[in-house]
Amino acid sequence: MDYRKRISKLQEVMRKEEAVGALVAPGSNFYYLTGINPLGSLERLFLLLIPAEEEPSIIAPQLYENELDSWELGRVFLWRDGENPYALFASILAKNFPEKGRLLVDDTMPVGTLLKAEFLQSYKLDTLNSLLSGLRVIKSEEEVKLLKKAAKIVDKVFYNLLEEGIEGRSEKELAAWIEYLVKSLGADGVSFEPIVASGPNGANPHHRPTDRKIRQGDVIVLDYGAKYRGYCSDITRTVFVGEPSEEAKTVYEIVKEAQEKAFQTVREGVTAGDVDRTARGYIVRAGYGECFTHRTGHGLGLDVHEEPYISPGNSTILAEGMVFTIEPGIYLPGKFGIRIEDDVAVLNGRGERLTKAEREFLSL
Amino acid sequence: MDYRKRISKLQEVMRKEEAVGALVAPGSNFYYLTGINPLGSLERLFLLLIPAEEEPSIIAPQLYENELDSWELGRVFLWRDGENPYALFASILAKNFPEKGRLLVDDTMPVGTLLKAEFLQSYKLDTLNSLLSGLRVIKSEEEVKLLKKAAKIVDKVFYNLLEEGIEGRSEKELAAWIEYLVKSLGADGVSFEPIVASGPNGANPHHRPTDRKIRQGDVIVLDYGAKYRGYCSDITRTVFVGEPSEEAKTVYEIVKEAQEKAFQTVREGVTAGDVDRTARGYIVRAGYGECFTHRTGHGLGLDVHEEPYISPGNSTILAEGMVFTIEPGIYLPGKFGIRIEDDVAVLNGRGERLTKAEREFLSL
Repeated sequence: MDYRKRISKLQEVMRKEEAVGALVAPGSNFYYLTGINPLGSLERLFLLLIPAEEEPSIIAPQLYENELDSWELGRVFLWRDGENPYALFASILAKNFPEKGRLLVDDTMPVGTLLKAEFLQSYKLDTLNSLLSGLRVIKSEEEVKLLKKAAKIVDKVFYNLLEEGIEGRSEKELAAWIEYLVKSLGADGVSFEPIVASGPNGANPHHRPTDRKIRQGDVIVLDYGAKYRGYCSDITRTVFVGEPSEEAKTVYEIVKEAQEKAFQTVREGVTAGDVDRTARGYIVRAGYGECFTHRTGHGLGLDVHEEPYISPGNSTILAEGMVFTIEPGIYLPGKFGIRIEDDVAVLNGRGERLTKAEREFLSL
Repeated sequence: MDYRKRISKLQEVMRKEEAVGALVAPGSNFYYLTGINPLGSLERLFLLLIPAEEEPSIIAPQLYENELDSWELGRVFLWRDGENPYALFASILAKNFPEKGRLLVDDTMPVGTLLKAEFLQSYKLDTLNSLLSGLRVIKSEEEVKLLKKAAKIVDKVFYNLLEEGIEGRSEKELAAWIEYLVKSLGADGVSFEPIVASGPNGANPHHRPTDRKIRQGDVIVLDYGAKYRGYCSDITRTVFVGEPSEEAKTVYEIVKEAQEKAFQTVREGVTAGDVDRTARGYIVRAGYGECFTHRTGHGLGLDVHEEPYISPGNSTILAEGMVFTIEPGIYLPGKFGIRIEDDVAVLNGRGERLTKAEREFLSL
């Protein structure tokens, strides 16, 4: 990845927006701008400082020295346990950031950092994410490649599950197993805790796996994702064990068709809201509008939820290189839930599915 | 857990400290005070507001309505996608929190929340964690029970690994497998990403698992933890595959003895620094002082790193109900690393190990 270019672009936008600079905390923004993803660094001050005009600096705990080896775009200031990193922070700010200007702060930074750095009060603090997400929302070819790899892993996991069978396994065990498969197939890790929601549990879109065992007649929602070199995938498939009710079969076909129609809508120039409207309209006309209780999708990248959000009325215009999920669902409390989710990229002006696992009705 | 009592205690301390109230974001503080642990809520405003005098309130996205069913200690204000939750937030603050007072803010809250709530600028914002950690650091009997369960799970995982064997497996695969075992044995999940560091990789205390396969002659550091109903365990064992070097055997015995001596130091009334000094002194006298590059331990509770920190010079006095790790290590760059870690509680005035897995030299 060309981190120099990413930082230059951010600096260009900051100058346009009359910001004096940005403070970035470890996390996806930090990784996007540096390629560095320090683990477990939240207790100790660790910051990327990007002045609008000058070269960037990193303040980091000495412990992380090795992880910063790859970074060549600016200075690194290390501090040791026992030293006060905030004095260092203050001096770098004073040197490189014109006083009392507009300073952009990473939205994910813990408030504790801000409270300990009282000298920041002389700046006008503002959100960094709304500006940086404008850059992050368009994926380069290299990024799309990684997103495709992440998608391929979750496809493979699905076929593994089909082969092994899922009847008799508890939701919790299966969720843990999915995570193991994701990692064993080459991912850095999961992009979120897998959801396994069987029978009536499927009616809660955010169900947390329980000890309930999957049994004959169940409808099972499997929703999980992988990270590959930081980039996320996210897939949902709904499968059946044994013979489902007629209603479940009917609802499955409605969700599948809604998802397909929404996918067909995707092209450069339409809005995110248009895609949502297509899925939602189809489900409303089928009589299940009240049972589709969430937005149609969300952007994918270094975060598993990012822009563009495929939600009602979102006027964001889809553009080449945007990547997002399409995941309509129908939830019948006390009965079951059905959701089908693919990752979709806008490539050569049209939608392309990155996840390709079977979407036809499957009874295991 | 008696959440009412926890909140009352916090209110009592806030009144003493002349704070008008506290804002708590989803995470361990939120869970400590409410027993509620909303998943993936960071995108949407979700807050617990605790005035020093009045009953608390929760602002939450409608989506999470079900998760709040268990909460009976105050009002719940739900907002729907499309509504502006910050107006609601402002009105609750204005009603319950005397203006321009000292307002304590959860250190882990994302800065984005603060930046979007400009009306908070009329308060004097200050850190909540330093105050709340004073309550959290002393564990009740009920909490110790859960910490013991979390510890028992990681012991079991260790014996599973001994039985299965680890030779020929990659660090990554083994780390993923440990996570699967932790979850399969009844944990909510891992308390952090498992560390599997084999051969020379062991010399980095924060090593991230790679594709390196474990082979004859390796020294392997296994460091992992479980969460049980929110409470964390954290264990490290160092094992050998085949015949290790004489140096590795010698260093193993030094680390084991340093850990034992530090454990024996633990009792009500000594300081955290005393425990560190015991481990460190022993390793220094054995000639490896420069190779013990981190603190001796950290507190355990709803966070895997919390107070008390067992670090040089920490004057915190150990008291009944404190729980922490003791984990000295010796790291020889290019060769190997050895660390042994147990979870220890101060109970009946003395130290008690919660993790009990074999600490004797083991060659698999």
